[in-house]
Amino acid sequence: MDNTQKPSGMPVHKYRPYHEQLTVHLPDRTWPDARITKAPRWCAVDLRDGNQALIDPMSPERKRIMFDLLVSLGYKEIEVGFPSASQTDFDFVRLLIEDDLIPDDVTIQVLTQAREHLIERTYESIAGAKQAIMHLYNSTSVLQRDVVFRTDKQGIIDIAVEGARLCRRFEKRIPETKVFYEYSPESYTGTELEFALDVCNQVLEVFEPTPDRKVIINLPATVEMATPNVYADSIEWMSRRLAHRENVILSLHPHNDRGTAIAAAELGYMAGADRIEGCLFGNGERTGNVDLVALGINLLTQGIDPQIDFSDVDQVKRTVEYCNQLPVHERSPWAGDLVFTAFSGSHQDAIKKGFEAMDARAAAEGVTVDELEWAVPYLPIDPKDLGRSYEAVIRVNSQSGKGGVAYLLKTDHALDLPRRLQIEFSGVVQAKTDAEGGEVTSDQIWAIFNDEYLPSQIADERWGRFEILGTRTQSDLSGDVSLEVTLRDGDDQFDAAGNGNGPVSAFLEIVRAQGFDVSLYDYVEHTLSAGGDAQAAAYVELQVDGERLWGVGIDGDISTASLKAIVSGVNRAIRTREREGVLASA
Amino acid sequence: MDNTQKPSGMPVHKYRPYHEQLTVHLPDRTWPDARITKAPRWCAVDLRDGNQALIDPMSPERKRIMFDLLVSLGYKEIEVGFPSASQTDFDFVRLLIEDDLIPDDVTIQVLTQAREHLIERTYESIAGAKQAIMHLYNSTSVLQRDVVFRTDKQGIIDIAVEGARLCRRFEKRIPETKVFYEYSPESYTGTELEFALDVCNQVLEVFEPTPDRKVIINLPATVEMATPNVYADSIEWMSRRLAHRENVILSLHPHNDRGTAIAAAELGYMAGADRIEGCLFGNGERTGNVDLVALGINLLTQGIDPQIDFSDVDQVKRTVEYCNQLPVHERSPWAGDLVFTAFSGSHQDAIKKGFEAMDARAAAEGVTVDELEWAVPYLPIDPKDLGRSYEAVIRVNSQSGKGGVAYLLKTDHALDLPRRLQIEFSGVVQAKTDAEGGEVTSDQIWAIFNDEYLPSQIADERWGRFEILGTRTQSDLSGDVSLEVTLRDGDDQFDAAGNGNGPVSAFLEIVRAQGFDVSLYDYVEHTLSAGGDAQAAAYVELQVDGERLWGVGIDGDISTASLKAIVSGVNRAIRTREREGVLASA
Repeated sequence: MDNTQKPSGMPVHKYRPYHEQLTVHLPDRTWPDARITKAPRWCAVDLRDGNQALIDPMSPERKRIMFDLLVSLGYKEIEVGFPSASQTDFDFVRLLIEDDLIPDDVTIQVLTQAREHLIERTYESIAGAKQAIMHLYNSTSVLQRDVVFRTDKQGIIDIAVEGARLCRRFEKRIPETKVFYEYSPESYTGTELEFALDVCNQVLEVFEPTPDRKVIINLPATVEMATPNVYADSIEWMSRRLAHRENVILSLHPHNDRGTAIAAAELGYMAGADRIEGCLFGNGERTGNVDLVALGINLLTQGIDPQIDFSDVDQVKRTVEYCNQLPVHERSPWAGDLVFTAFSGSHQDAIKKGFEAMDARAAAEGVTVDELEWAVPYLPIDPKDLGRSYEAVIRVNSQSGKGGVAYLLKTDHALDLPRRLQIEFSGVVQAKTDAEGGEVTSDQIWAIFNDEYLPSQIADERWGRFEILGTRTQSDLSGDVSLEVTLRDGDDQFDAAGNGNGPVSAFLEIVRAQGFDVSLYDYVEHTLSAGGDAQAAAYVELQVDGERLWGVGIDGDISTASLKAIVSGVNRAIRTREREGVLASA
Repeated sequence: MDNTQKPSGMPVHKYRPYHEQLTVHLPDRTWPDARITKAPRWCAVDLRDGNQALIDPMSPERKRIMFDLLVSLGYKEIEVGFPSASQTDFDFVRLLIEDDLIPDDVTIQVLTQAREHLIERTYESIAGAKQAIMHLYNSTSVLQRDVVFRTDKQGIIDIAVEGARLCRRFEKRIPETKVFYEYSPESYTGTELEFALDVCNQVLEVFEPTPDRKVIINLPATVEMATPNVYADSIEWMSRRLAHRENVILSLHPHNDRGTAIAAAELGYMAGADRIEGCLFGNGERTGNVDLVALGINLLTQGIDPQIDFSDVDQVKRTVEYCNQLPVHERSPWAGDLVFTAFSGSHQDAIKKGFEAMDARAAAEGVTVDELEWAVPYLPIDPKDLGRSYEAVIRVNSQSGKGGVAYLLKTDHALDLPRRLQIEFSGVVQAKTDAEGGEVTSDQIWAIFNDEYLPSQIADERWGRFEILGTRTQSDLSGDVSLEVTLRDGDDQFDAAGNGNGPVSAFLEIVRAQGFDVSLYDYVEHTLSAGGDAQAAAYVELQVDGERLWGVGIDGDISTASLKAIVSGVNRAIRTREREGVLASA
């Protein structure tokens, strides 16, 4: 069985391995034998590193929501901005301080470059705070020295040390604020270790760490450049050599370029670090900062308290998605929509047996299931502990070999169902197939969809009470539309008229006049293909006499499709009521 | 600076650390000093493990597209299904073989449980193939033994060994196919190492590996349960002890529950493995299988040929998104939409200087930039090598402190612009702000949007040639709509009529009668809030006399909004032509 892989033709010659660029040599490393036993100090940088990487940076309102979320989860060190670089950030820091929004046990952190007017401005931003971390950085890497700063090592040290001195000087201007220091040799992973150590130690001499006023040395993987064990080696190497180590809080700040930031944080923490900076769900520049949610819940699965409250992870996710205007992926660790979903039959079976075994054990021991050690196959954590449920997806359609219901309707019939309608309709399909058994073909699904939402044109198969036979609208663009419709009601036919700011509202007026309490909750419409002659589909989520349900209409006229969708929903509501009436009287 | 973090109240008592459950002891590990120097053997399991984790499993057509993609990228071992568990998978394997779709140097792999009728059925599926890998598995973990199989260690060994023997027996039925073997102790990470070794070695005795017919031993992190260094330790431990090691291909199959699958694969490979199973972009059960794209491109950044062609990663992404019907996240390593985007000014500046330095070096050395070693800050790879461009996002709006253009229009005006219109409009805003400088407020953006798409109602500020003054439509639900409109054309006014299957197509007929070559490319519409009286917004992408552009209409009547959007687009096209005419004659 030969390996038949061939050269790819990718330009391999342009890239040099990390170990040929920089030396990290620690054969007597101890971290691979270390075990994590307690939570690190966390620092959430969502409002700075996260925010600066957003397509739509957070508004003050979204910043406020993010800050409150971080506080409520239990984060005590929160980098709230880069006030000298952004007026918005400056204003937000002022807001936090002046409106007294920072709990006593929370310390805000602000980033600054090592330049005098920027440092001065940064001190202005934190005046009046009870305490704050002044986070000073300058870039130290070989590459940035060469192409950005065009200076030698001493030049870089001078920038750092002079910045630190300026910090100490301006610190005196705000004696009422307890100022702590953090220094980052930015682009640390591109810096020679000896040089990074030299810079950090010289800065430490200026900051004068003491037991009461420790100094944070933060070693960022500004760009992740090697496997995570190399980062861990470098951290252990630094940890052994940093001056005043006992009064230094060694901090990690891993980025995720290679997809191994979580590992880098964990191995670096095992290698002697004390603190980790990251963002919820791994937001941040490029591939993101390390994911604080994954790190925290990873600890929980090992019986270690993350000291952060993840008991309602869906709520955290929704809030972060709102603040960042970026989705959390379906497979994001511990929080993605699909991570507690078992699709395969054998997985579902094993999970079921696991739950049964836990129930039996609880009964035998006379305790509740929540008092037992968690042990269910394929579920490394109890989803309930994160406020989630275990979702077994029964794949009615996998048997058909044609893909899922929503996909089928989209590819075979160009219908793009809104998500909540997808869920409603999958329940309809499930009910039919549970009753009939066997496979479900694309044609069957289409027939079920038609029967449910699009009443048949054939008189014998017609089940809906109402049908639209004709429409006339008139508008003078004043904002008011008058609508006349010819409706079939059972075997009768009648004309009705309504007014509204559009045909939909005019038609809802007509429906209400028929005695229905109807309101519109959602409305989605799309054409079924490009071009002016395309059919349009309209989907309406209605509440009809207290029942929430969807209606669907398809027509060449987008207005008519909407009206048909309303009729579809009303007819379905009537049918539900009739069925329940039958059941009640049976 | 005290650590003020507090207990979270999470149910820590339910979870026991991994090292208290299972022992992985390898103090003399060598992998932390190892370096990756060549690509592993890859096995892509997108069509099996990936497919089985999809909401909408792949149709035969999508499977075919995925298979062709994997082959074209250079994967030589492809797990194509679980034929005994799924008729669709069986049929797909038959299709590949009978239609001769498998290149000679590609080996398909099929998964089977260790049960007689399933093994027999699996052999039926591969009959006629030139070669195939029969992938046998059974679950070996402590937990699965206890709660699923309710058997002891010997019972699990018997299942595995008997399965292997059955494989050897049925193998004789298809002498024309060269059969190779892979065995997986499923749930390996939940299995005592000594026991996993015992099972594997006993299976190896049955499969009789030889230099010409090596056997794959695959050690899956079916559930990722510990930090990735522990997986690496376990792999090195097994690698030292497996029987016939020289004729064994040691394979990894990491899942991503803790978010460290990429690290586990890399460290495990350093620990002595030969082969890695995974999926493109990390699709797969729950949090997914390890991401083959990240692993491959990680190698490239170290000057190692991944033996897989990632030169058009966007095309790979589009195809995979189509097959899986799941998005690739914006921050997915090397491929996400945002991973080559620098938002911060200092990053943009450093990148610019990096490009300039490379240009200067190339000029000095008399070579092209592509012959140089890549060295640009914040860009660990040349995006061009992946078929991408470097995208510096100029944040016109960050200064405004109110969020981005699209977000602003959504939150302040409930307008949800289609993505291509967002791009068009951000160019409009950019042009205005470059001209005028300074900050952009929400009001200014709204004014720019109105001026561009929604011609003013105030006579003096009106710039559009056409305006709709009234509409009358009539439909008998036969599929034909007649539309009459009153239009303003400059200072004149006239009535026109058209027919179509809806007002849009009827109106396009009217526009064409005015001498415009107009066609509709996209059409999106939404209400601006819930309720029947809501305003609706319509967005149309038109081609007018060869120019592609968007129009926007807002009205209480959804039909009228659409017609207004067409007028908006046509008016904009006329203006562009007039401006160009002015420029041409200037």
